[in-house]
Amino acid sequence: MGGDYGPSETVPAAAQALSLLPHLNLLLFGNIEMCAEALDAYGLSHHPNVSFVHTTQSVSMAESPAFALRHQPDSSMRRAIEAVAGAQADACVSAGNTGALMAIAKHILKVIPGVDRPALVSCVPTIAGTRSVLLDLGANVNCEAENLRQFAVLGGVVAEEVLGLRHPRIALLNVGSEANKGNIPVKSAAELLAATPGLNYCGYIEGDALFQGIADVIVCDGFVGNIALKTAEGMVRLLSSASHQQMKGWAGWIQSWLTRFFKRRLSHLNPDQYNGASLLGLRGIVIKSHGRAERSAFTNAILQAAVEVERQLPARIAERIDALPLNRR
Amino acid sequence: MGGDYGPSETVPAAAQALSLLPHLNLLLFGNIEMCAEALDAYGLSHHPNVSFVHTTQSVSMAESPAFALRHQPDSSMRRAIEAVAGAQADACVSAGNTGALMAIAKHILKVIPGVDRPALVSCVPTIAGTRSVLLDLGANVNCEAENLRQFAVLGGVVAEEVLGLRHPRIALLNVGSEANKGNIPVKSAAELLAATPGLNYCGYIEGDALFQGIADVIVCDGFVGNIALKTAEGMVRLLSSASHQQMKGWAGWIQSWLTRFFKRRLSHLNPDQYNGASLLGLRGIVIKSHGRAERSAFTNAILQAAVEVERQLPARIAERIDALPLNRR
Repeated sequence: MGGDYGPSETVPAAAQALSLLPHLNLLLFGNIEMCAEALDAYGLSHHPNVSFVHTTQSVSMAESPAFALRHQPDSSMRRAIEAVAGAQADACVSAGNTGALMAIAKHILKVIPGVDRPALVSCVPTIAGTRSVLLDLGANVNCEAENLRQFAVLGGVVAEEVLGLRHPRIALLNVGSEANKGNIPVKSAAELLAATPGLNYCGYIEGDALFQGIADVIVCDGFVGNIALKTAEGMVRLLSSASHQQMKGWAGWIQSWLTRFFKRRLSHLNPDQYNGASLLGLRGIVIKSHGRAERSAFTNAILQAAVEVERQLPARIAERIDALPLNRR
Repeated sequence: MGGDYGPSETVPAAAQALSLLPHLNLLLFGNIEMCAEALDAYGLSHHPNVSFVHTTQSVSMAESPAFALRHQPDSSMRRAIEAVAGAQADACVSAGNTGALMAIAKHILKVIPGVDRPALVSCVPTIAGTRSVLLDLGANVNCEAENLRQFAVLGGVVAEEVLGLRHPRIALLNVGSEANKGNIPVKSAAELLAATPGLNYCGYIEGDALFQGIADVIVCDGFVGNIALKTAEGMVRLLSSASHQQMKGWAGWIQSWLTRFFKRRLSHLNPDQYNGASLLGLRGIVIKSHGRAERSAFTNAILQAAVEVERQLPARIAERIDALPLNRR
């Protein structure tokens, strides 16, 4: 039910994901009346791998997390997370309200011991052709230094388990690269990280180095991470659209060719390609799709969930956090 | 002496600015031995509109603002700001250490009554072809709600005086557009701004709307603003460089043509075009150039200073702040 488009995009995305990974089993949670048409249109009404669970409520984008948690026991979001907690599902994917998803997931699934707050994590593309783990992307807008340290640990595990890196280079996002730069939590986090054994902490990086691949894990609070990622995404969309004013005749033909060339250049950094941020630090897999995701982007979020199920990411994180010296306290 | 390149870029920029605005009078502060070669090369050694003031110290990029303030009385940066305070100069332009520039300027020039902290402000281009006032860009990395309100007032004055707008639309940069979104200072600032008469406060905008021209003034703390702007700049550079791997023969010819096309599309958003952020809220004009500015970008910072001198920006700000209802207390 979530996101800016609801079932008109999430249902075709489910069909697309099934055609790509035919072994998937999909449980769809939502209002049957609002979904029936799309389910029929995309052949999912009687599909053997698709079960539909009717729910009477859904969390709107403007709802407060506290209200969604306390007063919407039959929301599609909550029922989907409960399915993960009850082992009817291996992962939950939602394009809905981030704050509510975070609050409900934390309440129902609980956090992994050693983690105070889950973080929203994405593997973003870089100009070097690699990917960097960026977190937090908006789950925690008020962070202390200790939260940032835990995010560094979580991000390091993702870099090792998902990206297959050894000793991933961990950096803090800051307004300068010199030691005296930064706000209070970032400066304190730098001290904590430098004092944490087993972490390959490399210092500060600035916003313009975010997509250069010079760090494998980039840590920031959720306010900064959300704004940095959305600014970068907005820039890519803006530059794509800059080549859109259609000309006529020969000029138009040349222009449309250039536009295709231009778009291919940008596709590498297209946010749709990496849609699907993981809510990490929970005892279960929860994937947050961008609210603005259309079907192909939402499909990527479903595929991302399938990858994490295969890697058993929460179990790996729990093992690694348990083994880290900082948690022997 | 400042910035990543020092006199090898600032001196030719001075020459370029003089050729564009022949009525300028330039006072250059720095180490004569390090500048002599560039001054000779660009014909400024005996130029009637150029005076060179030798200083024995300069503030490095890694220096702490407190050290620069207390222990470098003869730094080029301090001497240039003292020239503004003593009315030998109408404005100071520096590509040096932002924190030191802020601390020294605040100490020597003092703030305008009603302003607690100066902010770093830039007029950024938008896809709509307009410009938006973005602040703070890094002068204040730890901000309270009241600081953000003052930034909104300062930004509004710039939108009126520099961009010539009436009732500029003022927005807060946030992680969502709904009222319940945001960190503590931003949510409190939203309440303060909504309660401030005479301000056209329009609510929250997100990172991806930063360059869309939907707000005339965009307010955030210096940590967030610095990272958002640098992320956007990094993205433009990254996308420009993506078309740089040179091919051979005909393919190379077509590619270089496409690269030029591509670059023209981007030039509109090229950070060099709007280099020169104003340190606003002071009783004098101080322009901060990007540390990475090359000569043409640094030239733009000098021209920006000339514009602000013509508009008498500090006097306009003092008048407007004095007239605002919030300061009748």
